[in-house]
Amino acid sequence: MFLARVTGSVVSTQKVPTMTGHKLLIVEPYRLDTDARDRLVTTGRTFITVDTLGAGEGDLVLVCQGSSARLTPETKTLPIDAVITGIVDSVHVEKKAVYDRNED
Amino acid sequence: MFLARVTGSVVSTQKVPTMTGHKLLIVEPYRLDTDARDRLVTTGRTFITVDTLGAGEGDLVLVCQGSSARLTPETKTLPIDAVITGIVDSVHVEKKAVYDRNED
Amino acid sequence: MFLARVTGSVVSTQKVPTMTGHKLLIVEPYRLDTDARDRLVTTGRTFITVDTLGAGEGDLVLVCQGSSARLTPETKTLPIDAVITGIVDSVHVEKKAVYDRNED
Amino acid sequence: MFLARVTGSVVSTQKVPTMTGHKLLIVEPYRLDTDARDRLVTTGRTFITVDTLGAGEGDLVLVCQGSSARLTPETKTLPIDAVITGIVDSVHVEKKAVYDRNED
Amino acid sequence: MFLARVTGSVVSTQKVPTMTGHKLLIVEPYRLDTDARDRLVTTGRTFITVDTLGAGEGDLVLVCQGSSARLTPETKTLPIDAVITGIVDSVHVEKKAVYDRNED
Repeated sequence: MFLARVTGSVVSTQKVPTMTGHKLLIVEPYRLDTDARDRLVTTGRTFITVDTLGAGEGDLVLVCQGSSARLTPETKTLPIDAVITGIVDSVHVEKKAVYDRNED
Repeated sequence: MFLARVTGSVVSTQKVPTMTGHKLLIVEPYRLDTDARDRLVTTGRTFITVDTLGAGEGDLVLVCQGSSARLTPETKTLPIDAVITGIVDSVHVEKKAVYDRNED
Repeated sequence: MFLARVTGSVVSTQKVPTMTGHKLLIVEPYRLDTDARDRLVTTGRTFITVDTLGAGEGDLVLVCQGSSARLTPETKTLPIDAVITGIVDSVHVEKKAVYDRNED
Repeated sequence: MFLARVTGSVVSTQKVPTMTGHKLLIVEPYRLDTDARDRLVTTGRTFITVDTLGAGEGDLVLVCQGSSARLTPETKTLPIDAVITGIVDSVHVEKKAVYDRNED
Repeated sequence: MFLARVTGSVVSTQKVPTMTGHKLLIVEPYRLDTDARDRLVTTGRTFITVDTLGAGEGDLVLVCQGSSARLTPETKTLPIDAVITGIVDSVHVEKKAVYDRNED
């Protein structure tokens, strides 16, 4: 899985019928800043994920890719390759907090 | 999933029999411009996808990769690893419209 | 899927028994030249695929990756992650022919 | 699979229900130093994995990706795409030890 | 699939129980030298694969990734995403031998 920031959303009316009613969010994968190692930074990439948890813009989330994206009750039969599986509260690296939702 | 622009098509007559009759489109994955953050730009990559929605050249589409590309009624048994699952109307990032089909 | 040029072949006698008799081809993924946008160019990568269509050196082919590579009659039970699903006749991008097998 | 160093952890309370109780670790994929070829170095990437073996910060681990991440007794039905399958004792390259847990 | 050179091995005693007894090899993916096109060169990446064929250090091998790595008799139920499916004898590109095991 990877960490990602929710930064936007996608609207599509002409789509595969089973996708109707599923929220499509734009997420940007984040990685640890490899120099300072005290914060998360964007990788500059753009992915689209289905969200079933009510994640909102600005949230840091956990994203699962591949066939496992269908291993949640709401996504079993969907043609999707990425789903949000958690909204992140905090991330610690080498005992230091590199992300805290309350202070973000 | 990723966003991509439909830019062309592929013709192949010698192919795996089950692929007969399926439209093969060239798509270029797009990402958010990481500096201005107000528009989508090409990643410069080239993918081939099956289309079941009638997407046309110039359309921005949502592409699903991997085994989930077989999770639509028309693609269940096909040897494909990418399918168009939606034609995009609009994309918003940080409350700004970064793509609108009507103004594209 | 991706477009690729067949450039060679691999011989292996010590292999997983089910792989016996399956032709292994070297393919180089191609992408659209991002500047001129009027021809396909190599990405410089090297993949190995199984071929069931009789593709030959120099052919431009369509390659399917992942578990879907097993979705052809000849490859159902093989430990493979890539298969050639079509020999390409022509590719058009923005109404221009960027590849034509007869003029290649 | 790839080798990775465990460097941190993620806390998420709002998550897909089946993920409850599963430890989420931050791992950084490592590769052989391509010049000296006598040690492992970080690739600078950040992945999140589920751990069922009790791996701790600093451990070098073996990570399995994709649908196979569900091929352990504890992860069968989880929406995950990466799991730790081993804690590494030692790594040898060209007869030299490039990693030894006891001397790390 | 990709070609790779076996360069080392990994020892892990604390691991998922089903992994017991399976040899873990370090492999470096190789690609065609894009300029000279007369030899294979390392990509500088490091992967770990399971080996069931008795491949040894220095061998050039064929590696299958993803769920298909479980499509061999010995790996059916393993949490692995890569397996060696062949030991390579020779590789030809554009009619030239770019690898020959006997002259390596």
